[in-house]
Amino acid sequence: MYPAMDQDVNQNLEGFNVTLFLTETVGITAVLLMAIWISVYRGGYAWTSSPDLEFNWHPLLMTIGMIFMYGNGILVYRVFRGRRKRKLKIGHAFIHLMVFVLAVIALQAVFDSHNLKVPPTPNLYSLHSWIGLIAVILFSCQWVSGLVSFLYPGLHVSLRASYLPVHTFFGIGGFLSSVTAALLGLLEKAHFSVQVYQDLPTEGLLVNFIGMAIVLFTVLVMFLVTTPRFRRLATTEDDLLLQEDSQHKMLLPHHWD
Amino acid sequence: MYPAMDQDVNQNLEGFNVTLFLTETVGITAVLLMAIWISVYRGGYAWTSSPDLEFNWHPLLMTIGMIFMYGNGILVYRVFRGRRKRKLKIGHAFIHLMVFVLAVIALQAVFDSHNLKVPPTPNLYSLHSWIGLIAVILFSCQWVSGLVSFLYPGLHVSLRASYLPVHTFFGIGGFLSSVTAALLGLLEKAHFSVQVYQDLPTEGLLVNFIGMAIVLFTVLVMFLVTTPRFRRLATTEDDLLLQEDSQHKMLLPHHWD
Repeated sequence: MYPAMDQDVNQNLEGFNVTLFLTETVGITAVLLMAIWISVYRGGYAWTSSPDLEFNWHPLLMTIGMIFMYGNGILVYRVFRGRRKRKLKIGHAFIHLMVFVLAVIALQAVFDSHNLKVPPTPNLYSLHSWIGLIAVILFSCQWVSGLVSFLYPGLHVSLRASYLPVHTFFGIGGFLSSVTAALLGLLEKAHFSVQVYQDLPTEGLLVNFIGMAIVLFTVLVMFLVTTPRFRRLATTEDDLLLQEDSQHKMLLPHHWD
Repeated sequence: MYPAMDQDVNQNLEGFNVTLFLTETVGITAVLLMAIWISVYRGGYAWTSSPDLEFNWHPLLMTIGMIFMYGNGILVYRVFRGRRKRKLKIGHAFIHLMVFVLAVIALQAVFDSHNLKVPPTPNLYSLHSWIGLIAVILFSCQWVSGLVSFLYPGLHVSLRASYLPVHTFFGIGGFLSSVTAALLGLLEKAHFSVQVYQDLPTEGLLVNFIGMAIVLFTVLVMFLVTTPRFRRLATTEDDLLLQEDSQHKMLLPHHWD
C-alpha cells in the first residue's frame, strides 16, 4: 500500500540544511542577547550572596535549556537522521535530561531570589509563573514517560505506537508553553526593571529583540518539525534492531516508527 | 495506492464531539471571564469619552475575535465536515473576516486610549504590542492570500495544492501568536492595574484563570486540528464541484483536498 520508506536516497530534503543553519543562528543569537542583557544592564550573576543577581541565572538558564536545547532536542531525529534509531533516542533523552537539570537550577535561582529578599517576594503568583511551572512539570512527565515507553524498560510495540503521537503532541505543546512562559517572563521583567520601558530605550529594544529572536527560533523549529518531507524515514536497521531488542518479534510498520 | 477516502462512514471520529463540546465550553468561559473582569473590576466600557474605559474594548474584542472565533474558524472544516467544500470555504473566510473587523475595532480602542490620554501614552513599545501586531498583520495577509488562492479568483489547482500547507502552517502560527499576544497583554495589564497582584487577590486570580482558560482552549483546538483521523475527508462532491467551478478540468487528488 505504501511506497518503500527505507530509501533515504529518495528523500527530498531541499531547504533542510539552510533552515537548520538559520534556526541555530537565531537560537544562539537569542541566548547571546540574553547573556548580554544580563551582563550589561542587569548587573551580572551571583548566587545566594545577592538574591537580585541570583535571579539573573533564571532567564539565562531557562533560555539555554527550556528554549534552545529543548528545541534542538526535538530536532535530533531530523538532524542526525543517518544514525541508528537507538542512538538518536539516547541523544534525545540525554539533551532533555540536561534541559531538566538547567531548569531545576533556574527554578532554584528564582525561588531563592524571592525568599532571600528582605522582605521576601511571594512566589508563583503571576501568570508567567503558572504557565512556566506547567511547562516544566509537563516536560518532566514527558521525559519519564518517554524513557519508560521508548528506552527502558520499553513498552510493547503496539503501546509505543499509540503513545508516540501523544508524546509528540505534548512534547511540542511543552515547547510552545515554555516559549510562551519565556516571553511572559521577559515582558514582566521589562516592566519591573527597564527604566521608562514605554520610551523604548536601548535596554527596552534589546528585551524586545530577545523576544523576537525566541519567536523566530520557535517558528523555524516548528517548520522543521512539522514539514512531513523532513521526517526521518525508518531504516531497515531500525527494524533489525527492534527484532534484536524486543522480546516480541513484531515489526513496527514503517510509517509508525 | 491509497484507500478510498470519500467514504465518511468509515472514519473513526471517536472523541471528536466530546472534545469539541469541551473546546467550546472552555472558549466561551474565557470570553465570559474576560467580560466579568472588565465589568466588575475595570469599570466597564466606553468609547472616546473616556480613554481608560475605551481601552477595555481591546482585551474583550481580541478575546472574542483573535482567540475564540479564530480557533473556531480553523475548526470549520472538521465541525461541518458533511457540508459542501465550497460552503465551508466561504464560512471559514466569513468567520475570519469578522475576526478582522473585531481586531480593527480593538486596535482602534487601544490606540485611542493611548493617544487621547493627557499626557498621551506611547504606542507599540512593549513586547505585547510587537507580537500582537505581527499576529494581526500575519492574519490579514493569510486572509487575503487564502481568498485569492482558494475562493476568488482561485489559483490553478497545482498552485493551490502547494500553497495549502503554507496557509495551514501560518494559519496555526498566527493563531498561536495571537494566543501568546493575549497572554502577554493579560499579564501586562495585571501588573499595571491589579492592586497587589503579588498577593494574588481575587482580581489577580481571575486574571490568571482567564489565562488558563485561553491556554486550555488553545490546547483543545490544537488537538482537534492536528489529530489526523479528525481531518475532513474529501467527498466525491468536492471533485464534481471542482470540475464545475474550475476552468482547468484537472482533479485534485483526494489527499490534497
